[in-house]
Amino acid sequence: MHPVLISNMPNPVLINLTRGSLVESFHRGAVCIARAGAAPVVALGDIERPIYPRSAIKVLQALPLMESGAADAADFTDTELALACASHSGEEVHVETVRAMLAKSGIAEDALACGNHWPTHDESARTLVAMGQKPTSLHNNCSGKHVGMLTLATHLEAGLEGYEHPDHPVQQRIRRTIEEMTGEAAAPRMCAIDGCSVPTWAMPLKGLALAFARLAALSGLSPERAAAGKRLMRACTSEPQMVEGTGRFGTGVMRRLGASAFVKGGAEGVYCAAFPEQGLGMALKIDDGAKRGAEAVAAHLIASLFPDQIENAADLMNLKITNWRGLDVGKIAPSEELGEAIACLDTL
Amino acid sequence: MHPVLISNMPNPVLINLTRGSLVESFHRGAVCIARAGAAPVVALGDIERPIYPRSAIKVLQALPLMESGAADAADFTDTELALACASHSGEEVHVETVRAMLAKSGIAEDALACGNHWPTHDESARTLVAMGQKPTSLHNNCSGKHVGMLTLATHLEAGLEGYEHPDHPVQQRIRRTIEEMTGEAAAPRMCAIDGCSVPTWAMPLKGLALAFARLAALSGLSPERAAAGKRLMRACTSEPQMVEGTGRFGTGVMRRLGASAFVKGGAEGVYCAAFPEQGLGMALKIDDGAKRGAEAVAAHLIASLFPDQIENAADLMNLKITNWRGLDVGKIAPSEELGEAIACLDTL
Repeated sequence: MHPVLISNMPNPVLINLTRGSLVESFHRGAVCIARAGAAPVVALGDIERPIYPRSAIKVLQALPLMESGAADAADFTDTELALACASHSGEEVHVETVRAMLAKSGIAEDALACGNHWPTHDESARTLVAMGQKPTSLHNNCSGKHVGMLTLATHLEAGLEGYEHPDHPVQQRIRRTIEEMTGEAAAPRMCAIDGCSVPTWAMPLKGLALAFARLAALSGLSPERAAAGKRLMRACTSEPQMVEGTGRFGTGVMRRLGASAFVKGGAEGVYCAAFPEQGLGMALKIDDGAKRGAEAVAAHLIASLFPDQIENAADLMNLKITNWRGLDVGKIAPSEELGEAIACLDTL
Repeated sequence: MHPVLISNMPNPVLINLTRGSLVESFHRGAVCIARAGAAPVVALGDIERPIYPRSAIKVLQALPLMESGAADAADFTDTELALACASHSGEEVHVETVRAMLAKSGIAEDALACGNHWPTHDESARTLVAMGQKPTSLHNNCSGKHVGMLTLATHLEAGLEGYEHPDHPVQQRIRRTIEEMTGEAAAPRMCAIDGCSVPTWAMPLKGLALAFARLAALSGLSPERAAAGKRLMRACTSEPQMVEGTGRFGTGVMRRLGASAFVKGGAEGVYCAAFPEQGLGMALKIDDGAKRGAEAVAAHLIASLFPDQIENAADLMNLKITNWRGLDVGKIAPSEELGEAIACLDTL
C-alpha cells in the first residue's frame, strides 16, 4: 500500500484552464486564510492534511538567522536578507550578492550543500552558455538561504559540516521555530528532503496560514521574533527583485503592493503570504503541484484583498493562454468555489 | 459561469508522488484502452467527456497526407514521414530533415504558420545560443506536421494561404478523417486552436482509444487508410528519434518495443498509443495537464502489456524523484485504482 494521506472528499477545483469553449485542464487544491487567534477566514478544501511547505516558508527558516544576531554580526543589508529568504532566478545580481554574503561571513563557496542548476532566468542561462561557463552552487535558487544557514552555523559555533542535516543544530533551531510559528509538531515522520537537500517538514495549511498571520500582525511573538519577522518582511518587500527575479509573479506582486504584501511560493504548488494591514496569513497548495495553479489562486485572492490598488488578478499575472504565434487561444479562470471564497473576502 | 464540462464524480487519482513518507502531489485523470468493435478493456474515470487531443493524434492528422498520395508524390522517406507525425525536440537532425522536406515539396520556409520557439532539447538550444542564432519556425516541435499539411495543400491545389484555418480544405479533410477514425462528431463548438495554430477538436477518450485500436488492428478501415496507417506507424516505430528526440519518453518506448508499440503524447497531459499485437488502442488525459502524470500512467500500462520485454515501468522512465545534488528524495507511483487497471490488463 502507498502511504496516501488523502481524505475521502477530494479538494475542490480552484482553477479552470479553458481553450476554445471547453475546460481543457483544471487544478484542485486547498486554501486557508487566517487571522491569529481566530477561526480561518477562508477554509477551502482539506486544510488539516500535512503538506510539504518547501520554499514557501524560507522567511520562517530565516528567523533564527535574524533572532540569533548572526545576520547583524555578518552585517547583512536588506538586499542580502531578502536573498536569504529567496528562491532567486540565478541572475547576475543574485549571484554577486550571494558571493558578497559568503565574503562577509567568511565562508567558502564549496561549503554550500544546495547543488547546482542552470539559472531559471533564461537570458542569464544563455549568457552563461555564451561565455562558455557552467552554473555553480551560487546559481542554485536556494543559495541565499544556504549562506544564511551557514552564517547561523558559524555564529552558533556548530560547525559547517552537515549543516543541511535534520539533526544539525541549525536545522533543529529552524524546526523549533517552525513549530512555534505554526503551532504544529514537526515529527520525524513528517520530515522529507527538499530539492536543495535541507529538511522540509510537512505541516497542515491551517498551521502555515497561522504562522503567516502571526508574521502579518506581529502578534503572539517574543519581541526578538517580532523584530526579526518585521525586518525580514521589510527586506523582502523593499527588495522584491532579490526574492525571485525578473518577470516573476511574486516579485511583481511585492513591487505593486510594497510593504502591504509579503508573498512567497514553493515547489509543487505551494504559496504563502502575510498581509500586515489586514493581519491575515495565507497558505495554499495545489494537489497536483502546478505552479501555474498556485499563482493563479494567489493572484485572485490578493486582487480581492487590495481592491483599491489592484483592479483584478490579470493585473498580477497573465491569465490569457497564448500560442507560439501569440494568438489568444484560452484563459485561466477561477472556479465557482474559488469565486465564492473571493466574494467572502470582499465582505471582510 | 464558466463553461465547465466536468462530471460530478471526480476522476480517480492515477499517480502519487511521494516525498519522505507522505504523498506530496497526485494526478487525477481518465484512461481508456479499447479493442475495435468491443467494450473498453480499461475504462478508468470519465471517458465520455470531450478532451482536446492536441499533438497526441498527429498520426491521425497525417493520414490524409499519406492517403491522398501527397507524401509519395513528394517522395518522403520513413524518416520524413515520422517527422510529419512528430513533436520533435528541435535537434539538428530534426531541423535539417524539415528543411529537406520543404525542398522536396517546393515550399518556402516562411509558409510555416507554426510560430517559433527554442528547441526543447537543452543542448540544441545552447548550441544555437553559442552560435549567436535564434530559433526559427523549423525548430518548432510541430514543424514536420506543418510541412506535411503544406505538402497536402499543394497536392490538393488548395492554396497554402490559411492552411492552418479550420475551414481550409486541408483541415476539413483532417477533421473528417478524425471523425471517421473516432466515430465521433467534430462539431464547430468542439474546435479550439492548438499551440501551433492549427485546429484541435475535442473528442472523448473512448473515441480516441477506438481510433488507435483501429490503427493497431488495421480493421474497419478502407484499404487506402489501412495502408496509410500501417506505413505511418512503421515510419514512426522504426525512426523513434524523429518522433520526439534524445532522452524523451516516447522515443525510448518505441526503441524498446519497435513495431509492437506506437506511442505519442500531447500537450496538457494527453497520451495515445496503438498496440498492433494485442489490437489495442489507448487514450488518456491527466486532469491537470501534467506531462509527468501522463507519461507515468502510460509507462505503467505499457510495462504491463509487455511483461516479456519490459520488467517494470521504471525501465521506461525515471520514477525516482531526485534533488539538485542527485539524492533520492521521493518516488512516482501508481495509485490503487491504476494498480487495479494494471492487474486487469495482466489477465488479458
